Amino acid sequence: MREVAVVGVGMTKFGVSEKTNIEMFSEAAMDAIAESDIKPRDIQALFLGNVFGGFEEGQVGLAAFAAADIGVPHIPTTRVEGICASAGVAIRDAFIWVASGFYDIVLAGGTERTSVMGTSFATRTFAMGSESRYEFPVGITFPGVFGMMAHLYASKYGIPLRELKEQMALVAVKNHHYGALNPKAHLHREITVEDVLKSMMVADPLQLYDCCPFSDGAAVVVLAAADKAKKLIDKPVLIAGVGQCSAGPLHNQKDITRIRAREESAKQAYAMAGLEPKDIDICELHDCFTIAEIVATECLGFFPFGEGGKAVERGETRIGSKIAINPSGGLKAKGHPIGATGAAQVYEVARQLRGDCGERQVEGAEIGMTDTLGGDLCTVCNLILRRGW
Amino acid sequence: MREVAVVGVGMTKFGVSEKTNIEMFSEAAMDAIAESDIKPRDIQALFLGNVFGGFEEGQVGLAAFAAADIGVPHIPTTRVEGICASAGVAIRDAFIWVASGFYDIVLAGGTERTSVMGTSFATRTFAMGSESRYEFPVGITFPGVFGMMAHLYASKYGIPLRELKEQMALVAVKNHHYGALNPKAHLHREITVEDVLKSMMVADPLQLYDCCPFSDGAAVVVLAAADKAKKLIDKPVLIAGVGQCSAGPLHNQKDITRIRAREESAKQAYAMAGLEPKDIDICELHDCFTIAEIVATECLGFFPFGEGGKAVERGETRIGSKIAINPSGGLKAKGHPIGATGAAQVYEVARQLRGDCGERQVEGAEIGMTDTLGGDLCTVCNLILRRGW
Repeated sequence: MREVAVVGVGMTKFGVSEKTNIEMFSEAAMDAIAESDIKPRDIQALFLGNVFGGFEEGQVGLAAFAAADIGVPHIPTTRVEGICASAGVAIRDAFIWVASGFYDIVLAGGTERTSVMGTSFATRTFAMGSESRYEFPVGITFPGVFGMMAHLYASKYGIPLRELKEQMALVAVKNHHYGALNPKAHLHREITVEDVLKSMMVADPLQLYDCCPFSDGAAVVVLAAADKAKKLIDKPVLIAGVGQCSAGPLHNQKDITRIRAREESAKQAYAMAGLEPKDIDICELHDCFTIAEIVATECLGFFPFGEGGKAVERGETRIGSKIAINPSGGLKAKGHPIGATGAAQVYEVARQLRGDCGERQVEGAEIGMTDTLGGDLCTVCNLILRRGW
Repeated sequence: MREVAVVGVGMTKFGVSEKTNIEMFSEAAMDAIAESDIKPRDIQALFLGNVFGGFEEGQVGLAAFAAADIGVPHIPTTRVEGICASAGVAIRDAFIWVASGFYDIVLAGGTERTSVMGTSFATRTFAMGSESRYEFPVGITFPGVFGMMAHLYASKYGIPLRELKEQMALVAVKNHHYGALNPKAHLHREITVEDVLKSMMVADPLQLYDCCPFSDGAAVVVLAAADKAKKLIDKPVLIAGVGQCSAGPLHNQKDITRIRAREESAKQAYAMAGLEPKDIDICELHDCFTIAEIVATECLGFFPFGEGGKAVERGETRIGSKIAINPSGGLKAKGHPIGATGAAQVYEVARQLRGDCGERQVEGAEIGMTDTLGGDLCTVCNLILRRGW
């Protein structure tokens, strides 16, 4: 297998947009292409993550139309869907086509429109990612699942709910702080613990500021075989490891404070990279809700189980501390256009490893990780990136 | 790259079903697994083609739930969508993960429910595969596109429309004849040229029997590295070549009697296999409408451009003649559950190459090809399979 490099990244500003999925994808793609010092005609294949293009926009076959829109209609194009992990899965899929030697340069990313649905309708629509026969009909929604996760977490580890809620609030405060420094972020407002704890209840114990927003946006990366990449760019970022795992419907899962799909996926990525959790300097992970960030930092091996909340309290997930978690602002503040999120994570990690992140730069970051979680904890994709050849 | 074998195939009966997408996929998967002499736990990854699971059934994330349903929840699972080419694309994608050496045994296929929509609603829904901003709003539907193709074909090659319509009718008669011999086919009724020419007008000049039915169904294949396959099965079928290409929206396409995505895709597959059109003994191709079969036989190189209709008249596409086209009954009679079609083609070709097709067996078939066409001629995937190690 050949080494694969990220040679360019692009993303739209996340937020509320009137553009189509294809227009947003193209905007992000053209930025990624420009940064890569390639021409569109150099692209040999395209992989596009998207979840609701058919349902929300009446458009399937997005990958083929996106390729045409960026000026390369006659290449193989593939749309990939793994719920909120779609773009992560698309990039991992693109990776193997380059690593195997089949293609030298490919484009991968994702695009999604969610804001137009409005909050209630979007919550129902997202619940199509739960199992439709037994779980959707009993009223499972994602805020509900993660609310249950928070209660179970508090109970399992004997943490008073009030204490956990403050730790969760600190996740939101941190991610809003970084989001305010990120010009591409959906939300640019600093918030306080008090703001979180006074906000509207959504799904007990999750309040409004425990939840990420419904965003529109796209993000795209250009991958190239390392030998090609050397001719294209000066600040190389390599894909050191990839992992992906599913877990089936919620009712098959033993303990939702331990996300088995994530633990298996991360294990694969660490093994392939020959690295351990302690080697990771920065991680963009799936904080769709504040409790999700705490649980993810444990499943990925950064903190012992049951201690993720305390780590937040001790400031160990901030830039400049033990590990920088979501320096982009995460899903919580950067936003979560679901089919694009995995690619936006690679956008941030690649730019951090290159030292291009300005005020939110993690100094000396050499190794970064991405983590996307789809559905009721049922699909996870992890990528490990490292600086240098 | 390693050689990749098809070690098992399974499909549901195509037709009208009350089962969910996942139930149908699992049924086909369990047959494919049983035939492969593997256990579900041997499967290392799953690739599932599906187009309208979110829109029609309210279920996204199908791949993860399908894996759980067949007893392997904790593997990487990926849903792939390329409109009607979805399962072809899924299998090609699965191929690279095995060919590259990353996995030894993977499952790939597709599943779709279309009958529940009813004909009018399904026609509108399928039109989501046309470009949604400029083409869908002016009333483009697939019968319309292929109706235009027939008129253009007649005009371009100076064939009287009445003559072309009779050639098209002969495609329907042939495919219904083979469908009647296929226990998995949706339609089991022999028809005559007169039946076709007397049937209801759908989109001039296409009449009802020029059109494939709306079907439900699933088809699945097990792929394995050739060295593993040798230990599993006695009648090996290898993937000799793969191709895939897109073409963008219809308004970008110069000549819809020449499907560029198909010509490029087939060229890739032939080059990889080191074969030419004359080497193909059997081809399962995308006869969503009768004119589509005629045009496909030309784009794939079996007959000169403008002579596909005459080849049908001369019986050169029948079993036992120059090349057996759609011995399964094709989309026209076997049915077209869009996300499953590419895998059902591999099902037929693999069984033909093994000599397992009974009354519709193509004697001595050694090399077969599949061909799926997605959307307004905008995504094509071709696979070439051959018998033997």
